[in-house]
Amino acid sequence: MSELRQDPTTYDWVIMAKERAKRPHEFKKGARVRTDLPAFRKDCPFCPGNEARTPEASAVYGSPGNWSIRVIPNKYAALTPVGDTAREEIKLFRKSHGYGRHEVIIENPLHNQFIAFMPEAHVEELIRAYRDRYKEFRKDPNIKVIIIFKNHGEAAGTSLEHPHTQVVASPVVPPFIRRRYEIATRHYDNTGRCLYCDLRSDEVEAGVRIVGESDHFVALHPFASRYPFETWIMPRVHNSSFGRIHDNEIADLSRLLRGTLLKLHAALDDPDYNLIIHTAPVDDEHKTYYMWHIQIIPRLTLAAGFELGSGIYINTAMPEETAAFIRDFSVQGPEKWTI
Amino acid sequence: MSELRQDPTTYDWVIMAKERAKRPHEFKKGARVRTDLPAFRKDCPFCPGNEARTPEASAVYGSPGNWSIRVIPNKYAALTPVGDTAREEIKLFRKSHGYGRHEVIIENPLHNQFIAFMPEAHVEELIRAYRDRYKEFRKDPNIKVIIIFKNHGEAAGTSLEHPHTQVVASPVVPPFIRRRYEIATRHYDNTGRCLYCDLRSDEVEAGVRIVGESDHFVALHPFASRYPFETWIMPRVHNSSFGRIHDNEIADLSRLLRGTLLKLHAALDDPDYNLIIHTAPVDDEHKTYYMWHIQIIPRLTLAAGFELGSGIYINTAMPEETAAFIRDFSVQGPEKWTI
Repeated sequence: MSELRQDPTTYDWVIMAKERAKRPHEFKKGARVRTDLPAFRKDCPFCPGNEARTPEASAVYGSPGNWSIRVIPNKYAALTPVGDTAREEIKLFRKSHGYGRHEVIIENPLHNQFIAFMPEAHVEELIRAYRDRYKEFRKDPNIKVIIIFKNHGEAAGTSLEHPHTQVVASPVVPPFIRRRYEIATRHYDNTGRCLYCDLRSDEVEAGVRIVGESDHFVALHPFASRYPFETWIMPRVHNSSFGRIHDNEIADLSRLLRGTLLKLHAALDDPDYNLIIHTAPVDDEHKTYYMWHIQIIPRLTLAAGFELGSGIYINTAMPEETAAFIRDFSVQGPEKWTI
Repeated sequence: MSELRQDPTTYDWVIMAKERAKRPHEFKKGARVRTDLPAFRKDCPFCPGNEARTPEASAVYGSPGNWSIRVIPNKYAALTPVGDTAREEIKLFRKSHGYGRHEVIIENPLHNQFIAFMPEAHVEELIRAYRDRYKEFRKDPNIKVIIIFKNHGEAAGTSLEHPHTQVVASPVVPPFIRRRYEIATRHYDNTGRCLYCDLRSDEVEAGVRIVGESDHFVALHPFASRYPFETWIMPRVHNSSFGRIHDNEIADLSRLLRGTLLKLHAALDDPDYNLIIHTAPVDDEHKTYYMWHIQIIPRLTLAAGFELGSGIYINTAMPEETAAFIRDFSVQGPEKWTI
């Protein structure tokens, strides 16, 4: 018999389809692993030497002739800092200019070095770059939410191989984010505690879904995972906004994030995935009701009509099993793979 | 510059990415068209003669030896009518048995005859079968929501080619559906009118996004379409629940639905799509606040990290352009294609 589980951060239900569940190893992709890509491609606009093929950089780390991270406006920006944010309303049709920002963070000069394989110090520099872009965008009073995300692989929605992250700064707080914030606020009002801190504590106490721990963070496959191998990285230090992360937390996060992605890579043959940093709306970042966190969504299954029509996800893997599989997985391979 | 548009039925925002927008014809799949499939496959469990390979039918239309539509419990049911619907709660982890129903409606005996190509009378019988299953499931007092949906093609989440629809009866009203219902109720309380009736009237008056009309229904590409060629079929006759559709509406809907799917098939080379019937929760079906409607979601693009992390969709096609393209598209081909 299957099981219905509710995500306490969204109230969304998930069907854990035990009967049709696959064993964790059955999700292995068994296909090309992207580390076999060349380190440089002449035709890649993000590779060094091709800087003229992209918009002018808005930030460069390292030295200009020898950059380590390069931030550029997205050539096909979804939102641009032009016009205003006034809503126009004709009957039931409400719209506004597509005001905002949309940048690409080229994560490193190497075409084939993904986060799982970067030196730890480089991952640290990358997360500092994320924080810098957050802080830069929040200066604009029109910006209400900043979404940092990564599409790794075609099934995750990218066509460009070169490792990159995107940042979108939005002039509207979408209901999707407002709802999470409101649910956390209600929990805080009722209990005097942060919902996410409570959830992290409950998960640590249960233990069975934890995949990694460090001084400042916990990585886990949540109780109501919507997707097989869905992974959350939750801070131990309460903080609503990713923009307020401390340097010592960044160092610690770099190790845990790299290790988590390396294990996913090794255990599932380099799965396509999305990585999302959830954070409070800009105007709420100093309040204590919410907690920023990272979600990693491997794209191993497809949302079908049922998911699109009900918001209920059918998960064909039990998070207790996938978490045990990941915990016990020993990463073997070249020296650089050591975790 | 792009445009932000808000869906009045969900308050969700969509970014209409005009600059990166494709022309409507660029969404053509240009691949295998499924009507080239054989009419019968020996290895297909849904083809006639293979009835023993599926669970016993819960309903059969036509005669048993010569069925026209066959309804079976899903062999890998996500929900089953076993146990109770009591919630169990340990700390923040809330769960219940996977109580419910999950059926497959085998739409016709032919392996390759999709709705777009069925005789109109058969589409009518199929929609009556949908209504019958709805009415059957709603007798169970534990059932709170009934979701009728269809996955056409691999990108829409199906692996079985033979034309089929699924019905899931859920013991919980998910927030996804409750929210739509609440927004419609608020509009009703404020204006004394149905939100969906107002929206349909506004769309008909604007005209530019209409793709088809009949006595009782309107087909359109909504103002805040999340997906290219997203199509809604909205009743003209106010009615919260699909379960209460009248026979004369079914006849009319059959023609419009078939014609709409045929045009999508011809215009885009048989795109993969999901079809969803949105309807009020069972306990609210007699109230006037909501309106049932059909959504057809061609799966031409992928939700990436931005969509998964913000709930804001980036649509790379303008619904005004796709609607004009579909309106002007003249279906050519074998006689059976006439619309």
